[in-house]
Amino acid sequence: MRTVAVGLAERAYPIHIGSGLLADPPGIEAFRKRRLKIVTDANVAPHYLAPLLRALALRPEDALVLPAGEAQKTLASAERVLDWLLAARLPRDGCLVALGGGVVGDLVGFAAAIYQRGVDFIQVPTTLLAQVDSSVGGKTGVNHPRGKNMIGAFHQPRLVVADLDTLRTLPPRELLAGLAEVVKYGMLGDAQLFAWLEKTLDWLLALDANALAKAVEQCCTMKARIVALDERESGPRALLNLGHTFGHAIETHTGYTQWLHGEAVAVGLCMAADLSARLGWIAAEAADRCLGLLGRAGLPTQLPPGMTPARFMELMGLDKKVQGGRLRLVLLKAVGQAVVTSDFDAVKLQETLEHFCAASSSR
Amino acid sequence: MRTVAVGLAERAYPIHIGSGLLADPPGIEAFRKRRLKIVTDANVAPHYLAPLLRALALRPEDALVLPAGEAQKTLASAERVLDWLLAARLPRDGCLVALGGGVVGDLVGFAAAIYQRGVDFIQVPTTLLAQVDSSVGGKTGVNHPRGKNMIGAFHQPRLVVADLDTLRTLPPRELLAGLAEVVKYGMLGDAQLFAWLEKTLDWLLALDANALAKAVEQCCTMKARIVALDERESGPRALLNLGHTFGHAIETHTGYTQWLHGEAVAVGLCMAADLSARLGWIAAEAADRCLGLLGRAGLPTQLPPGMTPARFMELMGLDKKVQGGRLRLVLLKAVGQAVVTSDFDAVKLQETLEHFCAASSSR
Repeated sequence: MRTVAVGLAERAYPIHIGSGLLADPPGIEAFRKRRLKIVTDANVAPHYLAPLLRALALRPEDALVLPAGEAQKTLASAERVLDWLLAARLPRDGCLVALGGGVVGDLVGFAAAIYQRGVDFIQVPTTLLAQVDSSVGGKTGVNHPRGKNMIGAFHQPRLVVADLDTLRTLPPRELLAGLAEVVKYGMLGDAQLFAWLEKTLDWLLALDANALAKAVEQCCTMKARIVALDERESGPRALLNLGHTFGHAIETHTGYTQWLHGEAVAVGLCMAADLSARLGWIAAEAADRCLGLLGRAGLPTQLPPGMTPARFMELMGLDKKVQGGRLRLVLLKAVGQAVVTSDFDAVKLQETLEHFCAASSSR
Repeated sequence: MRTVAVGLAERAYPIHIGSGLLADPPGIEAFRKRRLKIVTDANVAPHYLAPLLRALALRPEDALVLPAGEAQKTLASAERVLDWLLAARLPRDGCLVALGGGVVGDLVGFAAAIYQRGVDFIQVPTTLLAQVDSSVGGKTGVNHPRGKNMIGAFHQPRLVVADLDTLRTLPPRELLAGLAEVVKYGMLGDAQLFAWLEKTLDWLLALDANALAKAVEQCCTMKARIVALDERESGPRALLNLGHTFGHAIETHTGYTQWLHGEAVAVGLCMAADLSARLGWIAAEAADRCLGLLGRAGLPTQLPPGMTPARFMELMGLDKKVQGGRLRLVLLKAVGQAVVTSDFDAVKLQETLEHFCAASSSR
């Protein structure tokens, strides 16, 4: 087992990464005397709910199983969780357990943030995306028809338990979506990780335990470092949004039903690399390396049909990255070095949008 | 003008108290370059919205007017505010202004807490209750059919502007409801304030400007001190809940439609004093002083009809003050000295409930 510490003073917590952790979650002892409630979804429950209930000595009525999918990440679903907690009279010193992928983690974390003005919660991520990214760092929230994650809170988990074995039941498409976030970490801050991914991609796709463990640990380590520097995203944390402003526009456009978050991020990463190259900040070859790796992984590198540059700009206008009326983007100065900036040539952004929209409509 | 500072390091903020502040709110300069949105209610808007829009150089479409009343303090109302903010594309560096009483302040503060994971907000309290209590300290939230303030967040305002002139248009019943909270401060932590209230009650009821200014300043000073010690209510802040566990049960029982929050708190204060006397912690005469002052102010000191001890216990069971399965109450060791404790004789609690329920049903 590998452990990464998130250093946030009184909000510090460990991320435990390894195999076979669900049967006896490390770090759970401190929570055994508290009232615990598990929330999961219909995809995850058949595989992992019974073992986790057993490990925590809970009964089936201590778990709520929600429908699965990004379209469920709504205020209405959060309200359903809150209603259930209130009916069960979970006290303020109770603790929620989020068992599932990014949707469950974001939703349950948000419910924990606003139930009785905040109760503790534990993340048990079961997708690669959640293990490398969304379960760590305390960003919680739900989507709104007008935009992704528009309603939410910063609320750190008390513990993260990432059991790599859960990735074995993950649909291949979900695994790839998680890989997009892994590639993101390489692109934004670790050229060595990026090069390692280029070499190791096939091992990861084959679910090699060592390769997965290293990828999850590297990503969590980088995320923990950035979150400790800037918990509430007033500075460097925004680097983690590489590809996400473009990606969120795609998700909002497609109504959260057709594309997985990681798939939208993959195209967003391609667009960020493309724009960085058009601005002359990275070589065309560097952008090609990014598109190449994502494409080799089987991730989408082109937009869904029907998006126009004008629609794209409109959707990005509401993104949280807008500040003082200017759109801020995360762009590349090199593979392995991103910057957050609103200081770029808008003409080049238009060219990138036109290029990707044209490629998509000509398919 | 009097100013009280809430000392919360990077979340510190001033409370400005005085007359004529709405026309040129002190401390607003720093916010003039930000996009501002006002939320108020239908009772307050006719009196104070136009002057505040003018003072902030805003247009009518920059304000949302909600229906008035505690029954509106729901997740659905918060969602309405969020929908409006998203339609208006308020950016993350925008700022909300809550113009109104406790309901507006709690609701708008909560919306600010969860809009794009948290935006700044300013409290402009227009009721005595909001000026002495709810606008200060960052407790935000909405009610749930199963309990008061069950959904919420800790989110500090950036500025509080309490214009005492707004109390002149306050319905007398609302003024009295605020006085209940003022009496609470005296009972829980300041015997001198309590004695001053006994002497000065008639001046306060006559809206004497000096008396009001002193009352608001004293309460804000005490609240600021307690909040600075214990922002998230892990310790002494719970003292501020004196009378509230009983009061919340009354509000939940009556569906938030018949009783004002302060009226329910007034009865709750009587019950806390009564129980403290039954436990032998204060003299019967001390409890009588509390009931006497609240009664002289014209506040209710008896329960609404139809409450039974069993129903009362059930409603209190879900209160946030339950910890480790035990009900914690704020009780008196003296007039001017409260304690938070679960270490009391449950038989005496039963006696208090029976006494108040019997008195009410025999009316």
